[in-house]
Parts: sequence; C-alpha cells; structure tokens
Amino acid sequence: MTGPGILFAATEPRWSDYEAPLRAALEAAGVTGYRLSPDLPAAEVDYIVYAPNSSVQDFSVFPRLKAVLNLWAGVENVAPNPTLTVPLARMVDEGLTRGMIEWVTGMVLRHHLGLDAVLARQSGDWLPVVPPLARNRPVGVLGLGALGKACAGALATLGFPVTGWSRSPKTIPGIATRHGEAGLAETLSGARILVLLLPLTGATRDLLDARTLALLPRGAVIVNPGRGPLIVDEDLIGALDSGQIGHATLDVFREEPLPRDHPFWAHPGVTVSPHVASETRADTASEVIAENVRRGEAGEPYLHLVDRGAGY
Amino acid sequence: MTGPGILFAATEPRWSDYEAPLRAALEAAGVTGYRLSPDLPAAEVDYIVYAPNSSVQDFSVFPRLKAVLNLWAGVENVAPNPTLTVPLARMVDEGLTRGMIEWVTGMVLRHHLGLDAVLARQSGDWLPVVPPLARNRPVGVLGLGALGKACAGALATLGFPVTGWSRSPKTIPGIATRHGEAGLAETLSGARILVLLLPLTGATRDLLDARTLALLPRGAVIVNPGRGPLIVDEDLIGALDSGQIGHATLDVFREEPLPRDHPFWAHPGVTVSPHVASETRADTASEVIAENVRRGEAGEPYLHLVDRGAGY
Repeated sequence: MTGPGILFAATEPRWSDYEAPLRAALEAAGVTGYRLSPDLPAAEVDYIVYAPNSSVQDFSVFPRLKAVLNLWAGVENVAPNPTLTVPLARMVDEGLTRGMIEWVTGMVLRHHLGLDAVLARQSGDWLPVVPPLARNRPVGVLGLGALGKACAGALATLGFPVTGWSRSPKTIPGIATRHGEAGLAETLSGARILVLLLPLTGATRDLLDARTLALLPRGAVIVNPGRGPLIVDEDLIGALDSGQIGHATLDVFREEPLPRDHPFWAHPGVTVSPHVASETRADTASEVIAENVRRGEAGEPYLHLVDRGAGY
Repeated sequence: MTGPGILFAATEPRWSDYEAPLRAALEAAGVTGYRLSPDLPAAEVDYIVYAPNSSVQDFSVFPRLKAVLNLWAGVENVAPNPTLTVPLARMVDEGLTRGMIEWVTGMVLRHHLGLDAVLARQSGDWLPVVPPLARNRPVGVLGLGALGKACAGALATLGFPVTGWSRSPKTIPGIATRHGEAGLAETLSGARILVLLLPLTGATRDLLDARTLALLPRGAVIVNPGRGPLIVDEDLIGALDSGQIGHATLDVFREEPLPRDHPFWAHPGVTVSPHVASETRADTASEVIAENVRRGEAGEPYLHLVDRGAGY
C-alpha cells in the first residue's frame, strides 16, 4: 500500500536541516509508505510542507492536495492565496514558543533593569541606580495567540503586572485581558513596556501609528518581535524624537534585511535585532508536521488550522 | 505598660526611608508602646535594627539587648563581632529576593541571547544569529540559600537546566543539586553560565580561583551578585585573558565603590554593575523586622536566625 506524497517546499528553513527530523517524526507518528522530497511530481503530492517564500505559489497544479502545512508561524503571505482551496495549518512549534519567551523576557528585563545604561557606563563611574521591582512596571502585550499568551504568562510569573489585548475576548489566569477598540486604549495607556505579538492582518496593519503611540505613557518602551507592518515607521521615529517613546527594540521590519539606509539603524532610540526572536526548530516543528499528516490520513481534524477569513 | 525600645542603627539604608514603613509594620504586627528612634539611650535598647556599616560596633554597651535584627542579607561584618552575645537575625526580604530574581534572570538571558553583540551591531549589518534554546544552555548556581534557591527556580522555569550547589545536601524540585568538594567540580564542569549566590564565609572566600575557574567549560560566563571576595580578582582576569572565561558580569567587589584604577573597569570581558542587583526594600523589610520584634516580645523563636558558627 502506498502512503502519502509529501512535498517539502521551502528555501528557508532548509531541506538539509529538516529531512532527518521529518522522517524520524513521521515514523514516530506511525505514517507508513510515505514519499518525502523537495522534488515530487505534482500529481503525487498529498501534503505540502510549506514556507511562504517558496517558489510554489500556484496550488492549483496539485490535483490531489489535501493540506498545506506551514513551517512558519505567520501565514499572511499564504492565507490570501486564491489558488489555495485546501486546509492550511499554521506552525505552532513548542521550540519556537520557548525561543520567543526567552527573547521577549530577555528584552523586557533588559529595559526594566536599564542594562543598556549599565553596559555604557564601564569607564569608572560608580553610579548605582536600583531599578523598581517588576511589580511596579506594568507591561502590555498586544496579541494573545500561542506566542502572546506564552510570553504574557512568563512575564507575569516574573512579577510584571501584565495586561493582554486581543481582538476577541479571552480569559487567561494571572493576566488582565482587554479587547476591542476601548480595550486597546486602556492597554496602551497603562503599559510602561509594550510587546507586540499580533498576527499581521488587515485589522492589525499600521495599528501603532501617531494616534495610538500617543496613548502610551510618556517614555514607554516598545518591543516588537511580531510583524514589521504593525508599526508605521515614520510615526515611531516621530514619537522617539519627541520623547513620547523612550526606546524601540525591533526584531521585524517591513523590509528584511532592514535596508542599510533605513533611519532605524542610526537612531539612538532604536535597537535593530535581525529577526532572531523566534525560529522554527526542526525537531519540534517536524513533530507538528508529522502529527498533521497522520491526522490527515486518519481523517481527523488538523491541528492549528488557519481561519482564512480572519487571516490567521 | 511600656513596650520595647528599638534602636535604628544604620547610615544606609536611611532612617528617613524606614521610619514610616517600620512604624506601620510594628503597628500591623500588634507591637504596642514601643519607642523607635535612631537615637535611644543605650539602657533603653531592647532591639537594634542594624546595618553592619553603622557606627554601633560594640554591643556590650546595651545592658538589656535582646536581639540584633540585620537590615542586610549579608552578615559577614557582624556575625564575627565578639561583643555580640544575643541572637542575630539576617534579613530575608521578599522584595530583595524578587529584585535578585529579576537581575539574575535578566543577566543570564542577556548572556544567553547574546544581547551585547546585538547592541554592538547597530551599524547596518544584518547578521542573524539565533541563540540555542535555554534547555540547551546549562546553568550552575553556587549557593542555595533564600536567594540562590529562588534564582535557580526562576531560571529552571524559563527552561534552563539548572544545577545548584551548596555546602550541605539540599533537595529542590526541578533543580539538580550537588554538595561538597566533588559536587562543586561536577557543578562547575557542566555550567555554561555560573551564578554566584554564596554567603561570604571562611569556606567560600576565594572559592573561584585559578584552579576552580579551570573546571568550568571553556568560554563559560560568570555572573556574581553574591559577594566580591568569592572570586580571586587576578585569577579571574587571567582566565578572561586566556579565553577560559568568556565574560564576567560582577555586581559586587572586594572594595566598593570599585576603585577607578581597578583593571575590571577597562577589561572588555568584564561588566561592572555598581551593586544594584539586590536592595532591601523598606516596605517588605520592615515587615520582617516587625515580625521579629513581635516574636521577641512574645518569647517565640526569631525568623532567619544566624548560625554564628557557620557564619550565615
């Protein structure tokens, strides 16, 4: 009996990093007789393990395609594809979530503790500045999906009072939650540090502009490991220049790599991080892919299915 | 009826910061009729709220002294005082513990994530380096008292594999624990990042010297918010110069403020932090002091009593 045909369609992450973990995970999941390759005839493809920057952009050429299994958390470059008529699953990778928790916690603590000033003051001046406790430093988290929820929880565990905001109402133990337009204003107005972990959709694009940046307390810090277009770049620079925003640590940008002549590079109030906050990890991501292939073959519902209407 | 006489003997922290929180805490604890002052006749003193840098160094002049209640976590400058014949209590302040957790977690994540390199690379070079996950970065914590245990727990919660070492055997959920000389070698040999939270005693002074630094994996990072004399300064500089130690982030020193001509200031492998990792917080510390006064008056055992023989 022949098992499913699985096309690996990605330039990044690489096939060489994924072949062994994917085969191991498929075997562990009990998927038998499968063919897995970055180069499979279109007529034999049941599943596509997919990165949105792949050369595969026309899904209509795969006559028996059952599902597209995204390797990235973000689906904004594949969800709107009109040739995609089968289920699309996002990557919710425990390794990626752990990495994001570590990066967000590290950056929030860096700003909370004033580490940049400590590192800059290594010339013999003993100037003790004891930071307040985390419980006196309210943090806002925009977006309460898998990543936002996990980061909000880790920050709350460290003692930060965390308010989380999402489009639809959510309840998370230990986190104050808000939603909708009024909830956004309330979340922003209380946040000394604001973490952006929203998906990129029509409703979230340009969410942080001159108007919403002005709702933050003066001197607030922004940490964006989410998506570049959540922020209007020029408005952020204006808010930094006026002192309304104290600092912005950005891991994602409208164009990546961030162009050399972009003003973010030279701005003293911006830390450019080269999109390293989260990365899908081959071992844990392969388990998610394999489980979805197993589910597809068994006729069970897929994990992490994208709501194409909502866009995430 | 007259309550206890309480002498506030400290230049740092200041009386002005402590008077109101101490009075509030004493009243909340139900201590009545007390006199609290930085200037009380020796014959009327029942308790001394004490900082070891106070001008009070001869305790024999207080005829009815019942206990010395230390405002600092460290007691190495008061425990050996031969004029001290009454119980000595250390400060175990929840606010101080929280602050230490935040500082240690922030510094460990800073090294784990390679934040210094990110901050140094703001000139237009997009060089993504994704750090490993915390679960692949073993951390050692020397000292499993209130602070060491709390920090070890916070790091384990973030995913770091933590090995904790103490003089006597301890069991802590989620932490591998070691003790004794063989346990020290094992803890050092596995630690990519080593956090020092030992008390300063005869047994811990100069613990990190050329011999023990050589037991760490090459390139290991040291984070010391404990006590300066735990480390032999010249040996650390030698280990940094040879590449055996990758970096040292030091918050405490043999002499503070660290003298301007000390080689730590100019060394690229050393981050000098001006003793800010932990500070006793007036509100939470006052509650501990007040509870011990209440216990003393009620004839109940004191909290956080120092074992004068062990030195902590």
